[in-house]
Amino acid sequence: MINQLIANIKKTNAPIVVGLDPMLDYIPEHVQKKAFEEYGETLAGAGEAIWQFNKAIVDATYDLIPAVKPQIAMYEQFGLEGLAAYKKTVDYCKEKGLVVIGDIKRGDIGSTSAAYAVGHLGKVKVGNHTYSGFDEDFATVNPYLGSDGVKPFIKVCQEEKKGIFVLVKTSNPSSGEFQDQLINGKPLYEMVGEKVAEWGADCMGDEYSYVGAVVGATYPEMGKILRDIMPKAYILVPGYGAQGGKGADLVHFFNKDGLGAIVNSSRGIIAAYKQEKYASFGAENYADASRQAVIDMREDIAGALK
Amino acid sequence: MINQLIANIKKTNAPIVVGLDPMLDYIPEHVQKKAFEEYGETLAGAGEAIWQFNKAIVDATYDLIPAVKPQIAMYEQFGLEGLAAYKKTVDYCKEKGLVVIGDIKRGDIGSTSAAYAVGHLGKVKVGNHTYSGFDEDFATVNPYLGSDGVKPFIKVCQEEKKGIFVLVKTSNPSSGEFQDQLINGKPLYEMVGEKVAEWGADCMGDEYSYVGAVVGATYPEMGKILRDIMPKAYILVPGYGAQGGKGADLVHFFNKDGLGAIVNSSRGIIAAYKQEKYASFGAENYADASRQAVIDMREDIAGALK
Repeated sequence: MINQLIANIKKTNAPIVVGLDPMLDYIPEHVQKKAFEEYGETLAGAGEAIWQFNKAIVDATYDLIPAVKPQIAMYEQFGLEGLAAYKKTVDYCKEKGLVVIGDIKRGDIGSTSAAYAVGHLGKVKVGNHTYSGFDEDFATVNPYLGSDGVKPFIKVCQEEKKGIFVLVKTSNPSSGEFQDQLINGKPLYEMVGEKVAEWGADCMGDEYSYVGAVVGATYPEMGKILRDIMPKAYILVPGYGAQGGKGADLVHFFNKDGLGAIVNSSRGIIAAYKQEKYASFGAENYADASRQAVIDMREDIAGALK
Repeated sequence: MINQLIANIKKTNAPIVVGLDPMLDYIPEHVQKKAFEEYGETLAGAGEAIWQFNKAIVDATYDLIPAVKPQIAMYEQFGLEGLAAYKKTVDYCKEKGLVVIGDIKRGDIGSTSAAYAVGHLGKVKVGNHTYSGFDEDFATVNPYLGSDGVKPFIKVCQEEKKGIFVLVKTSNPSSGEFQDQLINGKPLYEMVGEKVAEWGADCMGDEYSYVGAVVGATYPEMGKILRDIMPKAYILVPGYGAQGGKGADLVHFFNKDGLGAIVNSSRGIIAAYKQEKYASFGAENYADASRQAVIDMREDIAGALK
């Protein structure tokens, strides 16, 4: 799947992932209204609104982008009905040829991580049959529990040709509280980065490993160091746009081959119509605004990488 | 909810939480067969088998125990149908008066943690209505992202009178890989423990804070230190029984008031009928074997605390 991700990036010339993280207040009123008319102001109504919102954005952007990253929390908050919308979104994006990165940030002791891995990337056995629960292509994984919390994911990735992105240095303001702490003079995130390189060494696609890393756009200097520590790891870069990361900051996350990183934008694309810059599209044409925001982001990144 | 947990512990005289982490191969054949006859060998069939298995164990043990801890991964692996069984289990246990600790180990950047907190402990707004997605009483939280990944959970706990247990020192063999690393001479888990005490200081129930910690039974010496660092935090102690933690190891996790810790056992109780010790119950009477295993665990802990 890492090969597929890279092929998609080369084809679109856009190292961009669209974060499908729909808050209800991102969703234009006419979309909400229609869903609520059908299902009421219920969890099912919210799920329908999210799904219709996502579908229109995917339809308007899928030819421009290699991948999407639905954030499962935004669906999970609506319970089972929200998670049904998550699954519909995953399935639909895959039909459209997009690589789907499930932003699930799971991680637990070995047997429990194995269950998460099976549920999101693999197949579960029921009697004499096997089924895929959610079936994303990649998943994000939290490393706090150490190797035996991560390796069950890697095992399933090997079997299913899928991949993971391990949290190394996250984009949020307090990420340094533990991640930046010095251990023998070296910050924890570097130590985690070294582990990512080690875990990924035997997990190579054609050019890159399918054990990748998450490093926030908001910390470009750290990105530069981590790029060197994990030369074969694809870096998923959140924090561009609404969180403050700029195109010029992104150059450090890429390798000299122009590959090695994929930059996420969520709000900046899916709620583009709410920005002054794209206001002329109007709420009715929110998906067209998203398309324009993808084109602008592609140019911003291409300019920075020149 | 921390007051309710303590009241339940005092009433049952059992600082025990039963981990409802059903693997399909823990579930006796007659239970699986019945579910598959009704729903086929499908994800829905697996969900039904899990739900019926859980229900019988809860019915056989609820009067002896204060709380249960369903591990959501074991349900999530069966996709939406598995998560429906999770929700049924949560709701049923609450009906029975049990405190429900959702072992979800979520944690993300602020706005995303807020969505998880709302989905599992709070209420989500849809139009003019509010709904609870999963509605556990407590949730476990991963601290790797720092304060702004944890505080959204605390905010919802304050509003809803619920609680969290933050991962401090986990029970698995490789937990030390990052958690034991020394920062200015002090291991990371102590630093996280200090943060738990700080986060919990303004979150007091009558005797204990509703910001608790997870510390594995498999590391009793570290438990002793962490008990001192977080005197007001309730400690959720996994790793007893099947993972190797013994009754005698548990004494360090409790305060002098006999409170302050609640010990989880999963496999040791829910799959008790598979142990030689309880084999005479037979698979048909697996729930009775679980009841006996709870009684034995209560005695083991009471003996250790004498």
